[in-house]
Amino acid sequence: MLEVSLLGTGGMMPLPGRFLTSCLTRFNGSSLLIDCGEGTQVALKKKGYSCHDIDVIAFTHYHGDHISGLPGLLLSIGNSERTEPVTLIGPKGLTEVVGALRVIAPELPFELRFIELTEPVMSIPLFGYELRAFKARHNVTCYGYSQLISRAGKFDPEKAKKNNVPLKYWSKLQKGAVIEADGRTYTQDLILGPERKGLKLTYCTDSRPTKLIVESAGGSDLLICEGMYGEKGSEAKAKEHSHMTFAEAAEIARKAEVSELWLTHYSPALVRPEDYVQTATEIFPNSHVCKDGRATVLHFEEEE
Amino acid sequence: MLEVSLLGTGGMMPLPGRFLTSCLTRFNGSSLLIDCGEGTQVALKKKGYSCHDIDVIAFTHYHGDHISGLPGLLLSIGNSERTEPVTLIGPKGLTEVVGALRVIAPELPFELRFIELTEPVMSIPLFGYELRAFKARHNVTCYGYSQLISRAGKFDPEKAKKNNVPLKYWSKLQKGAVIEADGRTYTQDLILGPERKGLKLTYCTDSRPTKLIVESAGGSDLLICEGMYGEKGSEAKAKEHSHMTFAEAAEIARKAEVSELWLTHYSPALVRPEDYVQTATEIFPNSHVCKDGRATVLHFEEEE
Repeated sequence: MLEVSLLGTGGMMPLPGRFLTSCLTRFNGSSLLIDCGEGTQVALKKKGYSCHDIDVIAFTHYHGDHISGLPGLLLSIGNSERTEPVTLIGPKGLTEVVGALRVIAPELPFELRFIELTEPVMSIPLFGYELRAFKARHNVTCYGYSQLISRAGKFDPEKAKKNNVPLKYWSKLQKGAVIEADGRTYTQDLILGPERKGLKLTYCTDSRPTKLIVESAGGSDLLICEGMYGEKGSEAKAKEHSHMTFAEAAEIARKAEVSELWLTHYSPALVRPEDYVQTATEIFPNSHVCKDGRATVLHFEEEE
Repeated sequence: MLEVSLLGTGGMMPLPGRFLTSCLTRFNGSSLLIDCGEGTQVALKKKGYSCHDIDVIAFTHYHGDHISGLPGLLLSIGNSERTEPVTLIGPKGLTEVVGALRVIAPELPFELRFIELTEPVMSIPLFGYELRAFKARHNVTCYGYSQLISRAGKFDPEKAKKNNVPLKYWSKLQKGAVIEADGRTYTQDLILGPERKGLKLTYCTDSRPTKLIVESAGGSDLLICEGMYGEKGSEAKAKEHSHMTFAEAAEIARKAEVSELWLTHYSPALVRPEDYVQTATEIFPNSHVCKDGRATVLHFEEEE
């Protein structure tokens, strides 16, 4: 299962009652944070999460509202006595930007590792999941992310027999062992059925709608997507500022055939974003205009 | 009158319900902000202040919890369409630290002016008041600040007559004009009585207690002072981390003969600082263990 928590829903600047847009996921004891604006560490604490377990922080881009909370978060992770490395991922320039911001967080008791995104689509294997970065279209280089958790096939004793895998290895192979014996190499795929549907979360902000976003989000269990503007007639403004309307985000969700859409990253001028939910639901019915702290757990199909 | 608002009361890291320590004052339409940690701009908005009118931002020192909110605040000031310069004041290194942090706030529609503190005590004339910086004692270079508003003497017609100031100039001179006439220079002091008691606010965090702090805070109408630890027996910890206990801050207030003491900058471990108020009041009765947003207005004596 994959826990997903949308820590904040604001764009541009933090507001009383609206943290900046940021998402925390937890899988198998490892936390991934996407974006870290001013106040994200407070939003984390408010939801009861510890910053100690954050193994990876991925940045969509380096506008202040997406990274201004990094120095404070790093200091707090340090104060939580973490000593394991933290991996930072983001567009080109990551090392320089983080290096500059660390002027106020120069000493940390853990190592920072950097992965810079250089290709339009990049796949990064992490803590039992794959993080797939895909280029978005903003006024600076910007990426969206999919977190993919694959699921092995079911144990198939008929297949095991057909492949002449001795019974004594079945249990170990199911646990993922590779066994060299009898002059052969026994691997999991000899005893398992076809790979089952895994889990997929896609997160995209800030961007105009693009074909690559639709492709990248394809079949997601959950798409978290920016919706800077809700009002009808705000398409031109969205275009001008390289953002999306609720309707444009809903159009992506529909085309990508995702299961659910969460809207976020509202303009500070959008005081009651929920008033515009219909502009999304009339295109993609399972659209939700989220508030800070919205959380869910994505389960594998049979676990539900 | 001088409006004073203690925007936050936290030390080290922002917490849900406790912003980082920072103070906004307003005098004569000009706002002064002392320190700007992560979330200070939210605390400002929560109190209903606009960041547009902040003419001066003074920093005590460059630990993250006192400056991490600067890039976000500068961006928000920019979004408020300010075009007048903003003056930044702080210990040596200000230009470098702010320069580094501006990696995420490179374009601003207003000029930044820098005043670096180089002497143990420095007096800076600003928007109708004097900001007096005095060196504190922390584990990095750190300053406290007094904001002083002087008050001219009362109009004294007897003195005006004695000084042979023609009646026709009295009104203009009271408004501060300097008049060249009759081969003489007429100035305000020729018609006013002795200078009256002005207003004085002193702000000091983070520091051990020192003689210079007592001297600098002398006679303040309000002293806002750090109290990192409240518990009895925490003196050693305070010493180790270059901070103060409530009792030590109260001792400064008593010696400096201030009118009122506000405690702030609590350790995140201090969940209910108000439980320790007595450790301060038994030394200095008019001590207050503040919560975020505590505000007051300091009035000139006769205005009360």
